[in-house]
Amino acid sequence: MANNNRLCYDTGKLAMKSLLKDTFKLAEQLLQLEQDNATMPRHDVGTLSSQLSLELPQHGATQDQVFAKMSAVLRATPQTSSPRFLNQLFGGRQNYAAAADMLTALVNVSMYTYKAAGAQILVEQQLVQHMAKFAGFTNAEGIICPGGSMANFVGMMMGRDRANPSFREHGSDGRQHTFYVSDQSHYSVDKAAAMLGVGRANVRKISSDNRGRMNADDLAKVIETDIANGCVPCAVIATCGTTVLGAFDPLKQIASVCRKHDIWLHADGAFGGPALLHRQHRDLLDGIEYADSLTWDAHKVMGVPLTCSMLLCQHQGKLSKSVQQDAEYLFQVDHEDLNPGLRSIQCGRRNDAFKLWAAWQALGDNGWHQRLEQQFKLATFAADYIEQSPNFELCQRPDYLTICFKVYGVDVVELCEQLHVSGEALIGHANVRGDQVMRLVAVNPEISTSDLQRLFENIVAKQTSIISA
Amino acid sequence: MANNNRLCYDTGKLAMKSLLKDTFKLAEQLLQLEQDNATMPRHDVGTLSSQLSLELPQHGATQDQVFAKMSAVLRATPQTSSPRFLNQLFGGRQNYAAAADMLTALVNVSMYTYKAAGAQILVEQQLVQHMAKFAGFTNAEGIICPGGSMANFVGMMMGRDRANPSFREHGSDGRQHTFYVSDQSHYSVDKAAAMLGVGRANVRKISSDNRGRMNADDLAKVIETDIANGCVPCAVIATCGTTVLGAFDPLKQIASVCRKHDIWLHADGAFGGPALLHRQHRDLLDGIEYADSLTWDAHKVMGVPLTCSMLLCQHQGKLSKSVQQDAEYLFQVDHEDLNPGLRSIQCGRRNDAFKLWAAWQALGDNGWHQRLEQQFKLATFAADYIEQSPNFELCQRPDYLTICFKVYGVDVVELCEQLHVSGEALIGHANVRGDQVMRLVAVNPEISTSDLQRLFENIVAKQTSIISA
Repeated sequence: MANNNRLCYDTGKLAMKSLLKDTFKLAEQLLQLEQDNATMPRHDVGTLSSQLSLELPQHGATQDQVFAKMSAVLRATPQTSSPRFLNQLFGGRQNYAAAADMLTALVNVSMYTYKAAGAQILVEQQLVQHMAKFAGFTNAEGIICPGGSMANFVGMMMGRDRANPSFREHGSDGRQHTFYVSDQSHYSVDKAAAMLGVGRANVRKISSDNRGRMNADDLAKVIETDIANGCVPCAVIATCGTTVLGAFDPLKQIASVCRKHDIWLHADGAFGGPALLHRQHRDLLDGIEYADSLTWDAHKVMGVPLTCSMLLCQHQGKLSKSVQQDAEYLFQVDHEDLNPGLRSIQCGRRNDAFKLWAAWQALGDNGWHQRLEQQFKLATFAADYIEQSPNFELCQRPDYLTICFKVYGVDVVELCEQLHVSGEALIGHANVRGDQVMRLVAVNPEISTSDLQRLFENIVAKQTSIISA
Repeated sequence: MANNNRLCYDTGKLAMKSLLKDTFKLAEQLLQLEQDNATMPRHDVGTLSSQLSLELPQHGATQDQVFAKMSAVLRATPQTSSPRFLNQLFGGRQNYAAAADMLTALVNVSMYTYKAAGAQILVEQQLVQHMAKFAGFTNAEGIICPGGSMANFVGMMMGRDRANPSFREHGSDGRQHTFYVSDQSHYSVDKAAAMLGVGRANVRKISSDNRGRMNADDLAKVIETDIANGCVPCAVIATCGTTVLGAFDPLKQIASVCRKHDIWLHADGAFGGPALLHRQHRDLLDGIEYADSLTWDAHKVMGVPLTCSMLLCQHQGKLSKSVQQDAEYLFQVDHEDLNPGLRSIQCGRRNDAFKLWAAWQALGDNGWHQRLEQQFKLATFAADYIEQSPNFELCQRPDYLTICFKVYGVDVVELCEQLHVSGEALIGHANVRGDQVMRLVAVNPEISTSDLQRLFENIVAKQTSIISA
């Protein structure tokens, strides 16, 4: 392509080809680093800042200089696919999803209209319909949201707008609106209540049983009291896979309470939704077909790069009822099914569909089952090991993929810190029934039993040295 | 790395190396396609669906099969960096940003804590501080949001929570809360008002002048009436670069109204924020230093892959005041500055910082100025051309990068559709003072004057054929 009609500024597509070569080279180096690196080092902030010189310059730099800087930053970024990264509800890498997401960055579209995003809109539609089938949603619509918190927000908003149809147009009428969630729930529910104009204080925390599952009888009582007091219940948020214990609220019983009082049931399956893909363990979400909406993250248990949060709704038309806004300059052609911008809280929206679709093409439903099977096996292995060890105490047999355990005689906060500083593992702690415990997350199916064994041995070594100090 | 301790499931990092090769090959092919492709074809939905067979399978597929499928989908995705893609407020590709974003997909972190994201947190901090300097924000904090709509949402929420500090905790007290925005504003303001529990009907649409700028006198009157009637004004949203005309509201006058009544001023610079990087045209945002918060998208005018929306706040501590939520299992170490999850409406958050940082390293402040200079030149070239043509009528000389014009004797909706179907251009239409006009967007600095000339010739040819038909 001739550049002779450029007014002056000149980079261009030929340059991208050269960048692509360097990008690929750096990507290969980073993969090699992952294999060689036996540690997960913690960098001191001050040291890192001065080493990297991250300041944004007045003058530009050469390609080599920029790639050298990028390389340095990426090497100082935690390797989330390392078997030593056990800190979050994500870890590891679904390779096809990563490859597809790299291409997504190159082929940059915005997911509001078919006019602007073409085939990618159909890709997202396939995901909505297929995932809805696993949830038993027969009349589904859906949208990929930027993270599970935002998906929960949308689910809760649909509940709010159904409970009080004038809220969207006129705001609150001053009555007390309420949400219901277990005391083990994710903090995004409180956040969303604040954002939605319902208020954090109006999120009722329902008691949970000794395995962290919402007590449905308590739920019924609290709702009845609230209704008697003139409150407007907006939604119950059932957690499918709590953050700490991996507990699944009893959906059937909760749904029956919701049905009785005509309240929206949103299921927060950000962590636990993928269990629907396992042929036996899908029982954890027994009753999900009675939910009105469901959050299902693919970027946690399914290994897809962040973020990829599917929000499914059981009733077609509800999403647009809560979020639709005319924009004559944007939504110009095509049936509204093809313009998901009408169902999104966003306007410009990144394509988070293609990566999940690519992974699904590679794995098929069966591959996801196998992947989950492996994750469950790892969780079982870890729980067995802990039970048999004299140094630990298992908090409870895991229903899902988090394993919480006490480490005798030490402060686990200090222990986690030491493991991080030494580069042995990035792992977190949590509070279970008043005890500080370690929380191991078995979401990376690439981890081997020897990785876990090494982890436990490292923990014991640290434990011994702390106690004897 | 030995696989002998795997329980069964087996993919692994060696596989990723092989995928990386195929990814790179496909990326090169896609770039070649962009150069060869003289058209921007519209695919019929039905035909496309049946050609691509996008269904999610029960059984997985081989690497070759998956890449063949990915390739087919990507080839049926609009080429947003084509010089014929003129439909949106984004277009073209900042090459370094694209390269960095590809690496981001591989090096997958979540931007809530320094513990989990390391150096990437410092990268985002640099962007916040540097961009704040251009806005004249002296005590800034900020967070990258998933799109301009969400950044506006956060800015408006901070206004709401300042106007009525009990809103976050207890929801609305039933008083009428209000937002103020020009009648040319983006639809995200109405959406956000609905989400925030303020209500769409409580968004006051202030009249604009003949160039699309908010009338500050009208603003003052409407606010005074509202206050007299007991309303609670939450925020004024000034638009810096409207979607259709590219108009900039008069910030100084608006700020003085806000100051008088102690109302939060949010500046929606999703489109126009980058003008701050141009040494002369930064005057368009004269008075921005009086704003309390600012939305500034890097994925529109700056060519960074979607999404990259900076939300800056003038007052440190306000962001966390509106969104912070304790999560003991997550925020375990480090100073809160290093844990941006405390300032985000999201929990898991994609790394949208690295790509902008990489582009900035390559261009420097000066490079951004030059890029904008080129965009302004293209807009001027287009406006001149239209003014001199007997076939068109320019709606107004552009202040910024959108050029609206009438095409004599034809329905522009039909004209846009014909250009799309023929593959000559993807371009949109808009309503300006009751007329349907074409809207040309000069955001892709790679476009040459001959590209624009060809576009105008294509339009005239279609115009002639429609009129003579």
